[in-house]
Amino acid sequence: MPVSIRDRMADAIRFLSLDAIERATDGHPGAPLGCAEIITALFTRHMKFDPQNPLWPDRDRFVLSNGHGSMLLYSALHLSGYEGISIDEIRNFRVLGSHTHGHPERAPELGIEVTTGPLGQGIANAVGMAVAEARLAAFIGPDIVDHRTFALVGDGCLMEGVGQEVISLAGHLRLGKLCFLWDDNRITDDGSTDLSISEDVRGRFRIAGWQVIDVDGHDIDAVTEALKAADADEHPSMIACTTVIGRGLPRLEGRRGAHGGRVYSADLVEAREAAGWTHGLFEVPSDVYKAWTDGASVRNRPNVAAWEAAVAALPANRRAEFERLMRGDLPDGWREMLTAHRKRLAEEATTRSSNEATAEIVNLLAETIPELLPGAPDLEGPTNCKGKLVAFTAEEPTGRYLHYGIREHAMGSMMNGIVAHGGVLPLGATYLVFSDYMRPALRMAALMDLPVVTIYSHDSIGIGRNGPTHQPVEYLASLRAMPNMAVFRPADAVETAECWELALDRRGGPSSMICSRQPLQALRCDGGTQNKSAAGAYVLAEAEGGPRTVTLLATGSEVALAVAARDRLQADGVATAVVSMPCWELFEAQSVAYRNAVLGPGTIRVGVEAAVRQGWDRWIGPNGGFVGMTGFGASGASDDLYRHFGITVGAIVEQAKSRIEKNFEQISLAQF
Amino acid sequence: MPVSIRDRMADAIRFLSLDAIERATDGHPGAPLGCAEIITALFTRHMKFDPQNPLWPDRDRFVLSNGHGSMLLYSALHLSGYEGISIDEIRNFRVLGSHTHGHPERAPELGIEVTTGPLGQGIANAVGMAVAEARLAAFIGPDIVDHRTFALVGDGCLMEGVGQEVISLAGHLRLGKLCFLWDDNRITDDGSTDLSISEDVRGRFRIAGWQVIDVDGHDIDAVTEALKAADADEHPSMIACTTVIGRGLPRLEGRRGAHGGRVYSADLVEAREAAGWTHGLFEVPSDVYKAWTDGASVRNRPNVAAWEAAVAALPANRRAEFERLMRGDLPDGWREMLTAHRKRLAEEATTRSSNEATAEIVNLLAETIPELLPGAPDLEGPTNCKGKLVAFTAEEPTGRYLHYGIREHAMGSMMNGIVAHGGVLPLGATYLVFSDYMRPALRMAALMDLPVVTIYSHDSIGIGRNGPTHQPVEYLASLRAMPNMAVFRPADAVETAECWELALDRRGGPSSMICSRQPLQALRCDGGTQNKSAAGAYVLAEAEGGPRTVTLLATGSEVALAVAARDRLQADGVATAVVSMPCWELFEAQSVAYRNAVLGPGTIRVGVEAAVRQGWDRWIGPNGGFVGMTGFGASGASDDLYRHFGITVGAIVEQAKSRIEKNFEQISLAQF
Repeated sequence: MPVSIRDRMADAIRFLSLDAIERATDGHPGAPLGCAEIITALFTRHMKFDPQNPLWPDRDRFVLSNGHGSMLLYSALHLSGYEGISIDEIRNFRVLGSHTHGHPERAPELGIEVTTGPLGQGIANAVGMAVAEARLAAFIGPDIVDHRTFALVGDGCLMEGVGQEVISLAGHLRLGKLCFLWDDNRITDDGSTDLSISEDVRGRFRIAGWQVIDVDGHDIDAVTEALKAADADEHPSMIACTTVIGRGLPRLEGRRGAHGGRVYSADLVEAREAAGWTHGLFEVPSDVYKAWTDGASVRNRPNVAAWEAAVAALPANRRAEFERLMRGDLPDGWREMLTAHRKRLAEEATTRSSNEATAEIVNLLAETIPELLPGAPDLEGPTNCKGKLVAFTAEEPTGRYLHYGIREHAMGSMMNGIVAHGGVLPLGATYLVFSDYMRPALRMAALMDLPVVTIYSHDSIGIGRNGPTHQPVEYLASLRAMPNMAVFRPADAVETAECWELALDRRGGPSSMICSRQPLQALRCDGGTQNKSAAGAYVLAEAEGGPRTVTLLATGSEVALAVAARDRLQADGVATAVVSMPCWELFEAQSVAYRNAVLGPGTIRVGVEAAVRQGWDRWIGPNGGFVGMTGFGASGASDDLYRHFGITVGAIVEQAKSRIEKNFEQISLAQF
Repeated sequence: MPVSIRDRMADAIRFLSLDAIERATDGHPGAPLGCAEIITALFTRHMKFDPQNPLWPDRDRFVLSNGHGSMLLYSALHLSGYEGISIDEIRNFRVLGSHTHGHPERAPELGIEVTTGPLGQGIANAVGMAVAEARLAAFIGPDIVDHRTFALVGDGCLMEGVGQEVISLAGHLRLGKLCFLWDDNRITDDGSTDLSISEDVRGRFRIAGWQVIDVDGHDIDAVTEALKAADADEHPSMIACTTVIGRGLPRLEGRRGAHGGRVYSADLVEAREAAGWTHGLFEVPSDVYKAWTDGASVRNRPNVAAWEAAVAALPANRRAEFERLMRGDLPDGWREMLTAHRKRLAEEATTRSSNEATAEIVNLLAETIPELLPGAPDLEGPTNCKGKLVAFTAEEPTGRYLHYGIREHAMGSMMNGIVAHGGVLPLGATYLVFSDYMRPALRMAALMDLPVVTIYSHDSIGIGRNGPTHQPVEYLASLRAMPNMAVFRPADAVETAECWELALDRRGGPSSMICSRQPLQALRCDGGTQNKSAAGAYVLAEAEGGPRTVTLLATGSEVALAVAARDRLQADGVATAVVSMPCWELFEAQSVAYRNAVLGPGTIRVGVEAAVRQGWDRWIGPNGGFVGMTGFGASGASDDLYRHFGITVGAIVEQAKSRIEKNFEQISLAQF
């Protein structure tokens, strides 16, 4: 019996994937083989997108959450007609320099919406995308914004905590345009799923308010019907697709080894025989190519045309607003607003925590930036970024504040999805210690170059009595260790406003806005219009009465201690400068000349930060002093803790003076 | 109507808590007031423990997972008769130097089994404790080990991903002696739980295989009956206790502000009037004290006596074994085994990955150490620590390998619980990139001084084609930033064996064993019995032909590159030493003299590590060179990536030579 074109479309995925994985001598065959029919149904019969217009704003979003099955996606993208995924790219799967990476890496122009691989991240991104769509549709109108988000998901994503968090929240938010397709193959890397899970996964979705549809994942027609049923329901849908892992690879299908096992050239022969696939390596017959592009591209062209007409028919101001949102530009006026605010702060010289200063700015931004969507994981009160905003809910999609629940990881990953989608600007706020809960998401934002801004309040032992569980000491170092993460720790309200301008300007990566709980004295009353924090570090107070002998370097709440220490040292005749370093990453990018002018090589340098020393040696040199933490904090009043841990004006003065007395030259280069 | 002694026992918790929170001007009244009856029932009528013998090995474990309600625990411990929690401690709640910290901090002798506060961690610890109990009971016998684990849990713990992970796994493992008491008060910090959750929480437990019991949380008799029903069931039980948050505090009860709102002196008066509590501040009448100690301590004395008799009746060798396990000592012979293995490795000089070398050691340890419980989150194959071990399951509690499922965070937090329980030695193994998923658990291990060892394989771009999502670059820095975490990165099989000895010897904090996927050349063929890694860093190859000009410092897989670079430099007449630095934390603890002897101050120093530079400036000084990563990795073959990112023998030689040519003195102190 000849194989139908329908089934050969799926087989084309199988053989492109097998050939590529065999050639790479590395890869995961299980998902591309097991999900070939699911993806054929989704891409060629259901999903609204156009490979000829890959960045079409109203396209449906697809996320391969089980990113190890990357060849599934690359095969489908190639067959769909994405120019960037040529047959040569398929041949060069996993070769340095190709676009067909081991795991998919965000490139919307190639049809890859997000980087996936670390499990659970992808479906959480998808939930964020569905939130962005719902919020944007409510703002712009459903004639312009009306698309769906699909995610293919394996068992791993559903076992991961972050996956569980977003299942719960997506159900609560009743994201009706969200659909997960579960590759229910009953196999993980260890073997049978029975080894580690016995819960009713379908039931888990149902109790969270999802529609659950069961389907044979190898029946393209049945999957197509299920997708229609998903569309028709007002709840998010989970289509449980029963599949055979590695289907079509006789040696491995249905077995543990199929997940990530090696594919050999003999397998290519055997699989071809089993499927009746008579074509050579990386060869796809023209009727199969045509059926794919008809299904994926031609089918959707009327949709694109209709949408373009609807956009053209928008009133000019609405259209301009929509186009601005799609470009990711902020509305005019935000910078002027922020500059005026900064000037006011400098004039008023008010003592306030950088948390308060941030909340004030977020509330101002919310007035200027309609796409702003602040939110917090159940810390609305302490982080205080809600202001007058109404909550975003199933009933109020025009709402502009997101209650994430006590789900930090979900917040982080959903923000990535929201930013990757575009048109909505999320701002998540939590305590700095909880950044560890969302760290895998922060890493993905950094890796995807996504400009995601997170606010972290309660940044040190300065929080006081809640104790060491809630006192960050290693977090500045661990966030600074992450490539492409900008870490801002402002010293007062004016610096806070400066750092906000910089974070909003940053388009190629995430920012962490680190804020104190305790009040910070106003240090910057200059009122100038120059954003001094833009250089990452600057001389806040130059030495007086002679050439600089001592340079005190500090960030955030400790800059005030350095200023007080300078007063004492100057009074004792020691010419001392204070350098504020709100953003190391920006400072690192300055010229050597500027950095040397700020750091004062040859002077006695003391770093001050209520955190661990790691990283400071870069700035203070081998003879430098450091006043900070050497271990975890403790439960007690903030002032008691600063004294207890020796982070005091006296300690800074003593560190500087003891180095002057020892005579700089006598200190061996490796004396620590 | 006079208030019964039963209800006054609960009121005693309320007033001690209120008085303490008011005095501290800070704290969370909601849980102590809302759960007073639950804890009274559990502590005075049900739980098997004895405040006079706080370390009794067969005591039931209690975890306050909603750690912000710490005064609930301190009040109950004081009333139960724990000497260390005196009334003065209660008065000094949240004062620096007291034991009554803002959140409970592990101190089993005071009745505090684990440190809690970051939500979700406590219940995951509890699941780990229940695993330890089941495993230990299977090993030692149910006449000696037969106790339960109880956790009080709030909404936050159940929303957190890690909580969801352990609910699933505990149900799968059918941990029948585990019982959660859910403080179902329908209020979180943001307000009504309706803001962020609408799922059927009871249903979520049921579909995971838990028994769910509903009860009025303010009815001591009903809670007691529910606890009996929990005991009787072979599944883990969740008792859903309907409560009123802040009950007994008229101004706040049932309201959002009750969670963490300030308590004022007027509240103490109002609450006393409402409850008919006529006693002064911090005053508990003697009949209430007596009822508490009768219930908590006297009730349990026969249990302790019977248990002591059973232990005394054990055959001497079984008894000695049990006592060894309870002390946390390893069995005789492990060190000799490891030393012999190391010697053999040095003789054979075999090239193998440190991942393979580690797996081999774990398999050997499993033969020697019966309490060893390796496990992995669905990476049994790649981490390869199962060997011949049978899986630990509901049916096979004698099993010695734990399939955690794709739940890294659960693994981390459960290991903390297992180690806190004692008697079982868990070893979790996963990829280094997934350590971020468990980072909040790692922090708790470090904070609790728990000797938890985690194995991280696939430690750099050396993994190759899986790409940047799976290539750690910032992880060495972020783990080293954590206080009390020892990070081991061995350079070959011999160093791997040395590091294992050090990790197993380390009793006061966690260890991270960082392993390569790619094969590592044998560098240590000395065969000596000295554990050179014990100093954290050592001179692997001294300079020859003159005083040392260059010092190359490296870790792990990059040490071999440094050795090859040294060969070239020596051939060119540059006297060059190689320093291997398997554990920075141990090196930091050495004398200045030793560190200087190793680091070679005044020589040209170049650090080599396939990771970011952060932290290296401490060792290489301001004129030092660094060969490593400056950003994320890429997808490609391992060798291609090392070349692409310039981590090569040539680059190391060039870094050293360019510094020699420039003349050390001419390099400004702040040239970066």
